[in-house]
Amino acid sequence: MDAKALWQRYQDWLYFHEGLGLYLDVSRMRFDDAFVESLRPKFEQAFADMAELEKGAIANPDENRMVGHYWLRNPDLAPTPELTQEIVQTLEQIEAFAEKIQTGAIHPPRANRFTDVISIGIGGSALGPEFVAEALSSDFPPLKIHFIDNTDPAGIDRILTQLRNSLASTLVLVISKSGGTPEPRNGMIEVKKAYAGQNLDFAQYAVAITSADSNLDKVAKSEGWLARFPMYDWVGGRTSEMSAVGLVPAALQGIDIRAMLEGAKEMDDATRVADLKNNPAALLALSWYYAGNGKGEKDMVVLPYKDSLLLFSRYLQQLVMESLGKEKDLDGNTVYQGIAVYGNKGSTDQHAYVQQLREGVPNFFATLIEVLEDRKNPSPEIDPGVTAGDYLSGFLLGTRQALYENQRDSITVTIPQVNARTVGALIALYERAVGLYASLVNINAYHQPGVEAGKKAAAAILDLQKRVLEVLQSAKSALTLDEIAEKAGASQEIESIYKILRHLQANQRGVVFQGNLAQPSSLKVSVS
Amino acid sequence: MDAKALWQRYQDWLYFHEGLGLYLDVSRMRFDDAFVESLRPKFEQAFADMAELEKGAIANPDENRMVGHYWLRNPDLAPTPELTQEIVQTLEQIEAFAEKIQTGAIHPPRANRFTDVISIGIGGSALGPEFVAEALSSDFPPLKIHFIDNTDPAGIDRILTQLRNSLASTLVLVISKSGGTPEPRNGMIEVKKAYAGQNLDFAQYAVAITSADSNLDKVAKSEGWLARFPMYDWVGGRTSEMSAVGLVPAALQGIDIRAMLEGAKEMDDATRVADLKNNPAALLALSWYYAGNGKGEKDMVVLPYKDSLLLFSRYLQQLVMESLGKEKDLDGNTVYQGIAVYGNKGSTDQHAYVQQLREGVPNFFATLIEVLEDRKNPSPEIDPGVTAGDYLSGFLLGTRQALYENQRDSITVTIPQVNARTVGALIALYERAVGLYASLVNINAYHQPGVEAGKKAAAAILDLQKRVLEVLQSAKSALTLDEIAEKAGASQEIESIYKILRHLQANQRGVVFQGNLAQPSSLKVSVS
Repeated sequence: MDAKALWQRYQDWLYFHEGLGLYLDVSRMRFDDAFVESLRPKFEQAFADMAELEKGAIANPDENRMVGHYWLRNPDLAPTPELTQEIVQTLEQIEAFAEKIQTGAIHPPRANRFTDVISIGIGGSALGPEFVAEALSSDFPPLKIHFIDNTDPAGIDRILTQLRNSLASTLVLVISKSGGTPEPRNGMIEVKKAYAGQNLDFAQYAVAITSADSNLDKVAKSEGWLARFPMYDWVGGRTSEMSAVGLVPAALQGIDIRAMLEGAKEMDDATRVADLKNNPAALLALSWYYAGNGKGEKDMVVLPYKDSLLLFSRYLQQLVMESLGKEKDLDGNTVYQGIAVYGNKGSTDQHAYVQQLREGVPNFFATLIEVLEDRKNPSPEIDPGVTAGDYLSGFLLGTRQALYENQRDSITVTIPQVNARTVGALIALYERAVGLYASLVNINAYHQPGVEAGKKAAAAILDLQKRVLEVLQSAKSALTLDEIAEKAGASQEIESIYKILRHLQANQRGVVFQGNLAQPSSLKVSVS
Repeated sequence: MDAKALWQRYQDWLYFHEGLGLYLDVSRMRFDDAFVESLRPKFEQAFADMAELEKGAIANPDENRMVGHYWLRNPDLAPTPELTQEIVQTLEQIEAFAEKIQTGAIHPPRANRFTDVISIGIGGSALGPEFVAEALSSDFPPLKIHFIDNTDPAGIDRILTQLRNSLASTLVLVISKSGGTPEPRNGMIEVKKAYAGQNLDFAQYAVAITSADSNLDKVAKSEGWLARFPMYDWVGGRTSEMSAVGLVPAALQGIDIRAMLEGAKEMDDATRVADLKNNPAALLALSWYYAGNGKGEKDMVVLPYKDSLLLFSRYLQQLVMESLGKEKDLDGNTVYQGIAVYGNKGSTDQHAYVQQLREGVPNFFATLIEVLEDRKNPSPEIDPGVTAGDYLSGFLLGTRQALYENQRDSITVTIPQVNARTVGALIALYERAVGLYASLVNINAYHQPGVEAGKKAAAAILDLQKRVLEVLQSAKSALTLDEIAEKAGASQEIESIYKILRHLQANQRGVVFQGNLAQPSSLKVSVS
C-alpha cells in the first residue's frame, strides 16, 4: 500500500476518545473490508452477549456466576439495589480506611503511623495491584508497598528481612477469595510468625480482603483484625483491580481511586457501543481475531514505551491468557484456544528481542503503547531542538514502520499521559476486548479449570510426600526408590517420589541418600 | 508411555553435573531415537564450529569479529597472550576498584562512602546486570543499585527523584560500547545535569565502561572520571555479563564475581564435550530443535520456581531472540529464524497464564527451573510436616506432570541453590546452547542487524522532526499536514509528520493544533 493510501487507511480506522484523549490505531493490521464484513454477525452476537452479561445474566456457566466487574465502575448498572448499595458503601469504606491510616487516626500500637504495607496475594490478587503500583505510585507514597505473591520461602525472607526494622509500622493485606489458596495462606502464616517473633500482635496490623464468611473472613473477625473488605463472587480474580482487591492497596499508596474508576467507566461506556468501528474494544478483538485467525496463531507482543507501564504486559498475560486459554468451547468442542502474550517496554526491548520481531519468525503481532506526555516538567535538550522524549517517540515510530514494511502487523494505543484515569481506561479497554473476543470464539472467558487442576495436582504431591515419609520412618533400613514406591502403594509415581525426596534431602529434612546421584536407581534412602 | 517406561526414559536422559550439583532433564521432550540420530551430523558440525570459535576464528562474519566470551571465564583459552593478560588484569582492576569504593578508599567529595550506584545502559548493558542484581544482591548490599535502561524522561525522573537526597553519595556507571547509542547517551546527559544542578562535579562520581578510544572513553579520560573499564569488540552485548559490563556492577554490590566466573567456567568445560548426551547445552539445543522443528514453531516459556530468578526469562529473551531471530541464514537464504521466549516465575504464573499452557493453544514448550534449597534457614511448618517450600516444589512437579499428560513438552533444569556459581553456570549453559542451536540452523548468532536498523529508523524520524519544525517556523500562517509534508519534501511521510507534531504538541514545545483531533486531515498546525 502506498503512503497516501496508508494515510487514508490510518484516518479511516482511527478511533479517538475525546474525553480520555485516547487514540486507537488498527490501520497496521492488514485486514480488508471483506474480512470485516465476514465478522459482523459474530460481533452482533458478541455485543448481545455482553449486554446480557452486564444485565446480570449467568455469564460464567461452569461456576453458575454473574460477571459484574463493570458494575464496580458504575454501580447503578448492578442488577439489584442491594448490589449497588454494597458497591457504593465498600468504596466509601475503603476511602475512609485509607484516610485514617494515612492520617494516623488508625496507627500501630508502637508507632504514630504505618509506613509500609505488605500485600499478600497471588494471580488476580497481585498482578493488578503490582501493575498499578508501578504505574501510579508517587515517588514518595504515604505507604510503601511490598508484595508477597508466591510461596517461595527465600522470596518471603527477602521481604521480611528488608522490613525487619520497620515491621512495627507495617500494615499487612491478606487478599484471598477463599482464604484457602496455598500461596497467600502460606505467606500469611509465615508473616504472622515474623510479627509474633517481634512480639507484635498480628491482628493489630492485619487487613483481610476476602469473601464474606470465608475461612479467612472468619479468622479476621474472630481475631479482631483492623479491617475486612469484601471480594464478590461475581468478580473474577483477573478483573478485580477495581474491587477492594485493587482499590485498597491503591488507596493506601495515595493513588486517586475515584479517577481510576472514572476512567474505567468512561471506557466502559465507549466499549458498550454496538458498532464495531466506533468501539475500541471491538476494534482490538477484531484485530486479534484477524492476526491469529481466531485460533491464537500469533502471539500478542505488548510494548509500552514508558517505564512505568512495564508491568502492563504481565497484567495482560493473565487477563488474556487465563481468560482465553481454554480447551473447550461453550458447546463442549475441543478447541485449544488462547493468545500468548508477552513484552516488557520500549525502547528497551528494541535492544533485545525486537531483533527477532523485525527479522525473525513472523509468529506475532505487536501492540505499541504510546504516551504523549514525556514527563511532568519541560525537558532539557540533548541535541539542539531534540529531547530524550523525542528519541523515545522516534524509536516507537521507527519500529512501527519497520514492522509494517516487513509484513509484521501492529496496533498502536495512544494515551495523553499515565495517570489514574488513563490506567483505569486501559484496564477497562482490555477487559472488554477479552470479553468480546471470547464471544467471537465461543468460549467461557470467566473460569480457569486449569488453575484449579494445578492446585489439586500439588495437593496430590504433598499427600504422596506424607505417605513416603511414613514409609521411610517405619523402615528398618535404607530403601531403594522402587521399594519406597511399592510400600507407599505408589509404584506408578516413582519419579515423583524421587523428586520429593531430593527436595527434602536438600533442605535438611532428615532424608539421607547413599549411592550415585547421577543414577537415581542406585540410590538407597533413609531418614535420620 | 507408561510410568515405568517414563521413569526409565528419565534416567536414560538425565544429565548431572556433579561439581555444580546441576541436573538437566529432557525426558519430557517427546523426541525418539530416530530423531536424535538424524541430528547427529548437524551436531558434529556444531561442535566443530564451536571449537573453531573458541580458538579465535571469525565467528561473526558480518562484523568480521571473533567471539570470545568464553575466554572471560578461562583467560588461558584466549588466542593470544596479550588478550589473556588483558582479561586477567581487567578482572583484578575491577576487584581493586570495588574494594576501594566499598571501604571508602575512593569516596565522593562530600561523603565518606558511596551508598548508591546508578547504572546507565541498555540491552546487553542492562539485562545481565539487572538479572544478576535481582538474583544475587544481598538484602543490604554495600551499594544499592538503580538502573536507567531506557530514554524515557519520566523513568529517568523517577530514579533521580528517589535519589535526590543521596546524589552526593551516588556513583554512576555509564555502560556503552561506542558511547553513541542514544539511550545511554541521553541518560548520561540528563544525569550529568542533575549532578550539576546540585553543584556536584560529575567526573568525581562517574565510571565509564566502554571500548578503548570510543567517544565515551575519550570524554571520561579528558574529564578525569573515577575509572574506565574496557568493553571488547570480541564480546557481544548479550554475552557480556562476565565482562566489565556485568562484573563492575556485581562487584560493587558485593557479589562474588570470582564464583560467578568459576561457575561459568565449569559449565563451559561441560558444554565443550563433543558428545550430545553428555553435553547439557547440546541437550537443550536438541530439545529446542525438536520442539520447534528447527524453525521456532514453538515458544519457549521459562518458569523459574524462585522469586530471585524472576528476570532470568527476560535475560534469556534477549540472549535467545536477539541471537536466533534472523531473516537470513549464513548462506544468504531467507529463513525467518528464531524462538520466542517469555515467562516470569512459578508458582505465581500458575495463577495466571499457565491456564493457557495447560489447556489452550499448544504453541510452546516449557522450561521449568527448580531450586532445591528453599531458604538459608530451616522452614517453619505450615501444616504438620509440610513447609511453604514443599508447596512450591509440589506446584512445580504437578505442573510438569499435567503439561506432559496434556501433550505439552517440558525441560527441567535443577540447581542446588541460587548463588554466584550456579547463576554463572546458568548463563554459560544458555550461551552455549544458543551457539550450538545457531549452528544447527546455520545462522550467525552474533550480530543484530535489526537493532542497528532500528537506530537508523529513529534517527530518520528525528531528522524529519527538525525539517518539519523549520517549515513551521518559517511559515506565515497555520498549515495543514499536507502542506507541511510538501514543504518539508516529505509527502510520503505525512503520517509520521502528524505523529511527530502530536507528540510535540503534548509537550508544550510550541506546536499548536486547530481543528478536530479525531480527523487529522482537518488540522491546521502552527508554532508559537
